[in-house]
Amino acid sequence: MAPTDIQPDKSTGSVVALCGGIGGAKLALGLSRVLPDERLLIGVNTGDDFEHLGLHVSPDIDTVTYTLAGVSNPEMGWGRADETWNFMEALGEIGGETWFSLGDKDLAVNVERTHRLHSGESLSAITRDICRNLGIPVQIVPMSDDPVRTLVDTDAGPLPFQKYFVERQCVPVLRSVVFAGADNASVQPELLAALQQRDLRAVIICPSNPYLSVDPILSVNGMREALQSVSAPIVAVSPVVGGDAVKGPMAKIMGELGLTVTHGTIAKHYAELIDGLMIDGDSERITGKLAVMTGNTIMKSLEDKISLARGVLTFADQFAAGCNNLRGQRA
Amino acid sequence: MAPTDIQPDKSTGSVVALCGGIGGAKLALGLSRVLPDERLLIGVNTGDDFEHLGLHVSPDIDTVTYTLAGVSNPEMGWGRADETWNFMEALGEIGGETWFSLGDKDLAVNVERTHRLHSGESLSAITRDICRNLGIPVQIVPMSDDPVRTLVDTDAGPLPFQKYFVERQCVPVLRSVVFAGADNASVQPELLAALQQRDLRAVIICPSNPYLSVDPILSVNGMREALQSVSAPIVAVSPVVGGDAVKGPMAKIMGELGLTVTHGTIAKHYAELIDGLMIDGDSERITGKLAVMTGNTIMKSLEDKISLARGVLTFADQFAAGCNNLRGQRA
Repeated sequence: MAPTDIQPDKSTGSVVALCGGIGGAKLALGLSRVLPDERLLIGVNTGDDFEHLGLHVSPDIDTVTYTLAGVSNPEMGWGRADETWNFMEALGEIGGETWFSLGDKDLAVNVERTHRLHSGESLSAITRDICRNLGIPVQIVPMSDDPVRTLVDTDAGPLPFQKYFVERQCVPVLRSVVFAGADNASVQPELLAALQQRDLRAVIICPSNPYLSVDPILSVNGMREALQSVSAPIVAVSPVVGGDAVKGPMAKIMGELGLTVTHGTIAKHYAELIDGLMIDGDSERITGKLAVMTGNTIMKSLEDKISLARGVLTFADQFAAGCNNLRGQRA
Repeated sequence: MAPTDIQPDKSTGSVVALCGGIGGAKLALGLSRVLPDERLLIGVNTGDDFEHLGLHVSPDIDTVTYTLAGVSNPEMGWGRADETWNFMEALGEIGGETWFSLGDKDLAVNVERTHRLHSGESLSAITRDICRNLGIPVQIVPMSDDPVRTLVDTDAGPLPFQKYFVERQCVPVLRSVVFAGADNASVQPELLAALQQRDLRAVIICPSNPYLSVDPILSVNGMREALQSVSAPIVAVSPVVGGDAVKGPMAKIMGELGLTVTHGTIAKHYAELIDGLMIDGDSERITGKLAVMTGNTIMKSLEDKISLARGVLTFADQFAAGCNNLRGQRA
């Protein structure tokens, strides 16, 4: 099926997708192609955000934004396509910090965001303007306008997320993760309102790293309560494929935290929140009473993304239609 | 004479050059090629500095720095050679301000400077590090580490300098110029110490715009007094050539201020400070008792710059050697 042949989804009700970076952005793109524009809100992790060279960098927001704007770099998984690196080269010449790469085009978003944050605008408002200017018709909102910072404790000591993830390349052994500021942060108002609206169709937890990308979202004060009060189905897509991660350090981290890299571990992790888990393949038996749907969760092509989006929406709609007798067992 | 054939100047004593952007940077480059590295300090105008997109932009410091590092753009007169503009293009796409151009390479200096200023470092210290990293062996210092901002009053109302100079292209008719903050600013300590040292050989006022580039330097609290206390000769190079400016809005501005575009006007402007004025050509009679030397002040090639540097040093040395009976008549 070519993308241009997609029939718009005829169901009513809005969908909230919660996601981190690369994997989440792919499903978000798929959802944006099958849902009417006004019926999708994407809530994005900002635990990875950090101040670098005085700039406010929001890696996950930008990955989702660039993906939905069609300007992302498909090889790297982050940053922009057709990027140039003259800023970085010149920065190196004058002795600046070069461990975190900021492309020349990518800098525009970072400089503009920082400038406007310092002028008192919210991250939400700035993100909304950038999305509108890039022609993105769906809402992308940060999980919170308040600062939440992911910090990891490792055998090399405590590290801010980007120092661990980028500079240290996830080599240190992870012991624990904390989300500094989460207790005092509020859920972004439009995201909270979307979760509370009466015509909510589904909440979808995208196949992002549960420990580093989704947990920061869930850690925001009031977020778990909001999700537990949702009457619409909540379904997650397992990021495990073939006993491994599709990309990134998830499998390594799970090992370091004493967890097996299985759909069962993911199911247990989200157990109190979700109604159903979508998994790749059908070989693994999920213990417990969680509803499971199987399908291809690897999203290489746009067709893959759209297909998974359709699949997960169909899965969620089964709960609402009363087709699944497990509905309502969620804590 | 090829640049590599230059014989280093054998005279002792240090030289302080005061300059703004393009014209000043050219003579500063010439001086840097004929003087031993440790015997030249270049004091640069920061009245053009401004905050743009949250970045601290220092146009004249960067023009001098890039010129002496051999990385300046000779066609534009500002910015870097082999520059790219992907940041600006991406900034335009997201609705950012694009009236002031910042190249991708140029951004490195601006981001690094801003970051370090916000961390509490002085503009001097940051400039020193950037110069060292770019391999510049002579000292380039801002006129002051305190903020001084050039503001122009025009027939279109009061305008910050860059709004007038870049955004409005100097089209509004100039009425007056003020240097906000100058009264409370201190002369940069190394610049002040260089002016006060006993082995000072000469102070050279480069052929920059007197009203927009040199006056802000002279306006810094204590600067005029420091210059008037200097026992070494002070010579200026007239920026007038053939009854016009070599480049930029000087001639237009002089007309708007009711001044004729002559060496005589420049001589009168600097009368209380300088011992001698170097002028291009010999056709004009300078009224008053100021010593005058004639020569080519248009600096197209490196040889031109070096030749003017040698000429102005020779001119200055005449005063110290007692060859000129006008020495000592300075107020």
